[in-house]
Amino acid sequence: MFDSLSRRKLLKSISAATASYILSASAMAEVNSAEPAPPLHGNPGESKKAQRARWVALAQALRRDPVERRERPLALVRPIADSSKYLRWRMEQEDKGDALAEHLLRKGDHFILDFGGHRVGYFAFQLMGEGKSVDSPVRLKLTFGEVPGDVAEPLYPYRGQLSSAWLPEEIITVDFLPQHVRMPRRYAFRYVKVEVIDSSPNFGVRFRDVEAIGVSATKGEPQSLPADTPEWIRKVDMISAHTLRDCMQTTFEDGPRRDQRLWLGDLRLQARASYITYPNFDLVKRCLFLFAGLARESDGLLTACVFEKPEPLTTDTFLLDYSALFGSVLLDYVRASNDRKTARELFPVALRQIEVLFKYVDTSDIFRTPPDQWIFIDWNRQVDFTASGQGLMIYAAERVCELAEMLGQEEVARPYRAQIARMRTAARKAFFDESRRVCVSGPNHQLSWASQAWMVLGGCLTREEAQAALRHGVLESKESIPPATPYLYHHVAEAMTVCGMRAEALGLIRQYWGGMADAGADTFWELYDPKDSTYSPYGDVHINSFCHAWSCTPAWFFRAEKLT
Amino acid sequence: MFDSLSRRKLLKSISAATASYILSASAMAEVNSAEPAPPLHGNPGESKKAQRARWVALAQALRRDPVERRERPLALVRPIADSSKYLRWRMEQEDKGDALAEHLLRKGDHFILDFGGHRVGYFAFQLMGEGKSVDSPVRLKLTFGEVPGDVAEPLYPYRGQLSSAWLPEEIITVDFLPQHVRMPRRYAFRYVKVEVIDSSPNFGVRFRDVEAIGVSATKGEPQSLPADTPEWIRKVDMISAHTLRDCMQTTFEDGPRRDQRLWLGDLRLQARASYITYPNFDLVKRCLFLFAGLARESDGLLTACVFEKPEPLTTDTFLLDYSALFGSVLLDYVRASNDRKTARELFPVALRQIEVLFKYVDTSDIFRTPPDQWIFIDWNRQVDFTASGQGLMIYAAERVCELAEMLGQEEVARPYRAQIARMRTAARKAFFDESRRVCVSGPNHQLSWASQAWMVLGGCLTREEAQAALRHGVLESKESIPPATPYLYHHVAEAMTVCGMRAEALGLIRQYWGGMADAGADTFWELYDPKDSTYSPYGDVHINSFCHAWSCTPAWFFRAEKLT
Repeated sequence: MFDSLSRRKLLKSISAATASYILSASAMAEVNSAEPAPPLHGNPGESKKAQRARWVALAQALRRDPVERRERPLALVRPIADSSKYLRWRMEQEDKGDALAEHLLRKGDHFILDFGGHRVGYFAFQLMGEGKSVDSPVRLKLTFGEVPGDVAEPLYPYRGQLSSAWLPEEIITVDFLPQHVRMPRRYAFRYVKVEVIDSSPNFGVRFRDVEAIGVSATKGEPQSLPADTPEWIRKVDMISAHTLRDCMQTTFEDGPRRDQRLWLGDLRLQARASYITYPNFDLVKRCLFLFAGLARESDGLLTACVFEKPEPLTTDTFLLDYSALFGSVLLDYVRASNDRKTARELFPVALRQIEVLFKYVDTSDIFRTPPDQWIFIDWNRQVDFTASGQGLMIYAAERVCELAEMLGQEEVARPYRAQIARMRTAARKAFFDESRRVCVSGPNHQLSWASQAWMVLGGCLTREEAQAALRHGVLESKESIPPATPYLYHHVAEAMTVCGMRAEALGLIRQYWGGMADAGADTFWELYDPKDSTYSPYGDVHINSFCHAWSCTPAWFFRAEKLT
Repeated sequence: MFDSLSRRKLLKSISAATASYILSASAMAEVNSAEPAPPLHGNPGESKKAQRARWVALAQALRRDPVERRERPLALVRPIADSSKYLRWRMEQEDKGDALAEHLLRKGDHFILDFGGHRVGYFAFQLMGEGKSVDSPVRLKLTFGEVPGDVAEPLYPYRGQLSSAWLPEEIITVDFLPQHVRMPRRYAFRYVKVEVIDSSPNFGVRFRDVEAIGVSATKGEPQSLPADTPEWIRKVDMISAHTLRDCMQTTFEDGPRRDQRLWLGDLRLQARASYITYPNFDLVKRCLFLFAGLARESDGLLTACVFEKPEPLTTDTFLLDYSALFGSVLLDYVRASNDRKTARELFPVALRQIEVLFKYVDTSDIFRTPPDQWIFIDWNRQVDFTASGQGLMIYAAERVCELAEMLGQEEVARPYRAQIARMRTAARKAFFDESRRVCVSGPNHQLSWASQAWMVLGGCLTREEAQAALRHGVLESKESIPPATPYLYHHVAEAMTVCGMRAEALGLIRQYWGGMADAGADTFWELYDPKDSTYSPYGDVHINSFCHAWSCTPAWFFRAEKLT
């Protein structure tokens, strides 16, 4: 039977989970509260096209140059193959970083610098020539490594499907020495390998004033956690924060090594984590307006990803779950910032996603992703996402209803509230296996972590059912398909949190993110297979990203959810 | 016996040869003639060091940005291996240059542009992405070719001794499309090969607005030769002029592909050729002051080569013949420009070279290059340069005497005039084989073109002896060692000109420079072995320079010497 009391309790906790960080941000004044609120559906007489152009212009006006942080290398290191290490290599210190200037390098020589931690930014140095005659250009090869394997293993032959142009390798030629060289492209790196391809037989080269110029939209470090916080949590929290910092640039990027793009699903987790670590409301607002201004012209559906450079540009990549979650991002934002003006202006965009997507809810109140469209949920495409998609759409619609109610638009929310209720009933009926007390999905009653997580987050189960599903469908099941990505791990941990399995959520974080930390992560990775450090969905581990936005949420669990 | 009348005639003609272009420049007003002449030996109380610094500053004040010339590619071409062609390849046109924009290129695609002629400068283009999603950087490889082999043959494995960093090849990565790309380095090229290393499977790239931005200190074309000039002379003259144009940058460079440096020996020929094609007195003056300001501190000897960038810098490369010829460059300059102020200021520098070098004239009045020092004359180091060195030193000293006399310093010239006379007598005695009527050099009485040329230019032979030597020691001898470089070919042709063998000089130019022209030269080469297009003194033909200053003098013969 359906226990409506326990369900209401669960729903409250789901909403509270997304709202609890407001406590730490409540001191913020309401942004622009003195200005008259704009009309809910745009300026009078403004066309959709003009409105979108205005939103993009508004987003562009919020663009800020990143903050620079200059650092010297800590050490000269040498990679040693080490099968006892998850990352296959350990780095041995050869000398202190400032000893580099003592070395005169010739054709074929190389060195590897260790900056002691991950950063995103630029690399610069003073290149001197020394010898009988500095009589030719110098050609150098530079490789930027997030992890030891990037600089210890050859990047070619490359076996990946993604563009090899992402491989962080450059060959440069410096004509006249001495010369200050600042590499023109931005890289994500802790290690820099420099090889002298050639100078001339008459001279060698010396590197002085080598520096990494880290860039981020934020600076400093988040407030310290309470003094009695366990060490492993401090460590995972710090790695989370640095992951986020390095993805906070002129937008929230998914990963600074590769793609470097603003994805709606990643933005949602990043923005949440940012409010309690590096609050930067303008950056979130900029991203919200970029998406809103670049919506699909035909129906207003939001793209999953926008390109920021060289000019803001929409894409034809649509992930129905990402579009649906725009309201969740907006709700989180207004709760953190109190910027109701933006909430009022963008609420119609959030609502529009639900209006468009709920056309795919069938007569039995089940959301069905059309076969020619994508719902993301997780990278593992073997998973049947019907149950999780249903839970997610309910979750997303409920956030839009909360936004409507916050803005005094209860009448807009009402029909959706009714539909959400019907969809929850249908979901429980279709996907909850009462005998096994787990959620299943698809014609083969497939068991997956995705289904448990989103059925819980969608509020389709009572608190006790939710706990049972997460226990039997996640923690204790060997057959249940686990996540491929930290993005889904996050939602599993969040589902545990909202149904009272806080210890289990913390355990999962300790096991998964703590596992990456133990394996030597400076920032959390796009992908983590505890059994195989060469796993890549792209065919080559060297194209994986080792600082990826959707992995940054442990800090949010610790700080917003007080999960310690 | 020594025929002093015919010798005087010959000497007059040697001096006139270097002076005859003054006719075409005589309309020029005397440069700065209104200013008071500076003292002959520097400003009163000015130290040598201060004087040198002032000269370098004066040179730097004369630095001018090169003139830009933008051009579109004429054709898309494909190299076809062709053993009937001297350069091993012929270029077949695939399409017009402006058809490039019609091609969408993907990973592995490439094209070769033909700009229709040699230039020095930059390469720029608009890079567009087209496809489902422009979702990655683009990595390109660019190769700049002076001749077809540069872009038709792989540059690696490289077998040369000079730095491979000179190989004109770049790999670049363009992050965001569309993007205007201007390659930051300067290249010497007619052909540009562009290979798409990778984009992504989701898009291809299109190149628009491709342009070469040629740079030179000069612009326009030299005055036309008289209407009845033979076609081959017009062609060789034009190639000479373009060779010079592409070497005239912020200094006179030896070769814009490789080295890109100011050499004193090359400067002498370039400056001469410039006065009757692209007169630019400030550029010559700048180079004269650079050498003077960067003389060796201990004794004032001039280095063979100075580095201009990033800051003017002397080198420890001394070629005794180059130092000696500074006076020749200065004399040519003042005759062409009428800038007596500079001549007065730099005369002591020219004189100093002879003062220093004549210490190596032994008691039998023979100049002997010390074993630890170099006299260049030509690249072929099998040649005994005693005879040619003697002739050259006499030639150089005589130019300094002419300078002294022009500046009213006859008393300075007098002792050198006497020494020159003694050295001529000694030279004729030591090196002229009266029975064979050729000049020989060294313990093995070696026969070489170098010896004949410089003994004639040094005025050591009568006109008839000179003609005989050039006939028996150059034109009709199979054993006589020919030049390795156009630099020595020039001096052989000049020697023929001064001793009345104008037809033979013209024949040599037709055969040697005309041979390069027939072989497809757009500009004259650093090296030309008619029998082997892969010859390189550096171990790899791809490091040879195909536009080299010391090859630019046919225009001087045609225009200043009226050799047509």
